[in-house]
Amino acid sequence: MSRIDLQTAIDQIRPVDEQRLAEIQARIDSQAKPCGSLGRLEEFARRYVAVTGRDEIRQKEIYTFAGDHGVTEEGVSAFPRQVTPQMVLNFIDGGASINALARHAGAKVVVVDMGVDYDFEPAEGLLIRKVGRITGNLARGPAMSREEAVRCLEAGIEIAAGCRERGVDLVGTGDMGIGNTTPSAAIAAVFTGLPAAEVTFRGTGIDDAALANKVRVIERALEANGPDPADPVDVLAKVGGFEIGGIAGLVLGCAACGIPVVVDGFISTAGALIASELHPHVRDYVFAAHRSVEIGHGAMLARVGQEPMLDLQMRLGEGTGGALAMTLVEGALRMLREVKTFADAGVSEGEEA
Amino acid sequence: MSRIDLQTAIDQIRPVDEQRLAEIQARIDSQAKPCGSLGRLEEFARRYVAVTGRDEIRQKEIYTFAGDHGVTEEGVSAFPRQVTPQMVLNFIDGGASINALARHAGAKVVVVDMGVDYDFEPAEGLLIRKVGRITGNLARGPAMSREEAVRCLEAGIEIAAGCRERGVDLVGTGDMGIGNTTPSAAIAAVFTGLPAAEVTFRGTGIDDAALANKVRVIERALEANGPDPADPVDVLAKVGGFEIGGIAGLVLGCAACGIPVVVDGFISTAGALIASELHPHVRDYVFAAHRSVEIGHGAMLARVGQEPMLDLQMRLGEGTGGALAMTLVEGALRMLREVKTFADAGVSEGEEA
Repeated sequence: MSRIDLQTAIDQIRPVDEQRLAEIQARIDSQAKPCGSLGRLEEFARRYVAVTGRDEIRQKEIYTFAGDHGVTEEGVSAFPRQVTPQMVLNFIDGGASINALARHAGAKVVVVDMGVDYDFEPAEGLLIRKVGRITGNLARGPAMSREEAVRCLEAGIEIAAGCRERGVDLVGTGDMGIGNTTPSAAIAAVFTGLPAAEVTFRGTGIDDAALANKVRVIERALEANGPDPADPVDVLAKVGGFEIGGIAGLVLGCAACGIPVVVDGFISTAGALIASELHPHVRDYVFAAHRSVEIGHGAMLARVGQEPMLDLQMRLGEGTGGALAMTLVEGALRMLREVKTFADAGVSEGEEA
Repeated sequence: MSRIDLQTAIDQIRPVDEQRLAEIQARIDSQAKPCGSLGRLEEFARRYVAVTGRDEIRQKEIYTFAGDHGVTEEGVSAFPRQVTPQMVLNFIDGGASINALARHAGAKVVVVDMGVDYDFEPAEGLLIRKVGRITGNLARGPAMSREEAVRCLEAGIEIAAGCRERGVDLVGTGDMGIGNTTPSAAIAAVFTGLPAAEVTFRGTGIDDAALANKVRVIERALEANGPDPADPVDVLAKVGGFEIGGIAGLVLGCAACGIPVVVDGFISTAGALIASELHPHVRDYVFAAHRSVEIGHGAMLARVGQEPMLDLQMRLGEGTGGALAMTLVEGALRMLREVKTFADAGVSEGEEA
């Protein structure tokens, strides 16, 4: 696969052509229905076609990035750390929620080991891109070095480049990593400027006492590391995670390669936020899959600059919301391809049409 | 097909078994993911299985009921009345938005002529169930007689009974009828007690002056007819529509026959509201597809007692939101069938699991 370094990828990102968006909307407006009446489906179709130049999806792939987190020693998660490799094996085996929902969406699942504290055997559907075995405990120091952060981003960019070569034209992001709502909330706090308490929530299901502790852990992490919001790589290194870096790289790489990317929930959005802080036009390529139950998600989405497609009170990650969102993009393109025009259908236009 | 009269259908409706719902949730909770983390997908799966006793959908059908409205002579719509039959022909021909989205969802579309002012040739996918050619202008008198309202309801019930016989296990509702947001808003006002101005909106796209006129038309309709909210058949007769009556009958019939029914947007919800006022447990069988742009929709959904599955700023009708919602139910069942348990996947459970 092509290797593209971080700066080259950033330099390749272009805004989506406004003229092209307008032409696609004109095509939609000629279809036999009141103008604008299919709401956001019209937006999904418009943006997908403007980015890809095609009105049909050939190949969908969901990349579920996995990593372990040193901060788990602070008691921030309801699940023990060994669940990260156990779930990776479950993904490879096809038995997890993301596998079921990806089959529903007709998408392939690829798991990317960015830094799980376990040695996986080679397997179909598994990419080993280990940057480390576990991040440093961000409550006491940086999660990783700056060089490791760049390696995470470039691993994601390389995957996007591979997708372009193989004709993958809708990519989804996902995550697995016990403890990873903690770095995600820290990233949210850094870029939104909100206090940790306003962007930190229950993850897989911690109680009130554990939530109060998690907020304090994030406050300590921000104080101990002083991440610089003007330097997204610094933020990733100091309070991020290996899988979050991989997601950020994939999102950035998709923007560089002209591939629409469906961003899953809270952790994926932390990655997309790092990418969109690296280049403002990353957002043109992002489809925000759903609004997570995590309270910090809305503020991150607002900063990324995309509205979520679904609100189903989900909080699982793995890419599950993204899989469902892919089906909505597919429905939107079906509309664009198959609905007849007023003229072809022999339907009278309205006053305002 | 079986004929079931209105009272017999009402008498057949049973609440969904709470014990069964709890058993299905226990099955979901044993799957390798944090408890409750798939949010509303879990609800969709739980309710679908509790109603049908199966975790797979065999056959999906969407019934798009069509009718004409005498109230169009008051200038309440942006489109001319001949668009109703033109769109019915477009549905039969497969070129409309509902056809595209139903193909996306793997559902069959059947159009039901409940009272269009046009004589259709017999066609595949068309049921002629004409109760009239056009309703009376509800601004000046009743839309139809009580006997006609019962015929509308029984036409819908008969369709539900046919679905049961043929093994259709997910039904969707849809509508076509120029002018039909006006009776729908009137129905919303009657059952919610809200003023007409708070439940009336732009339909296919009228301007401010036409909207002000539409509100006055509905106020006059309520005053002229005095529909009785304690008597849903009276409300349908006085300020309803033939297609709204067909939808109400289908929703009621699905509840009587034990078939989950996906209710589309504003007009379909007006039908579902009449059905749920006829029997409170109708709501157990209703999946509210989406939140329409029409401002009166939320109040109607609240009274029906279901939360919408999608919010995509749609306002087309035809059953389009319902088609998309069917794909979410399908995804939810995929989760239920295919996600391994903690034990089978070899994954450690969390503290609270």
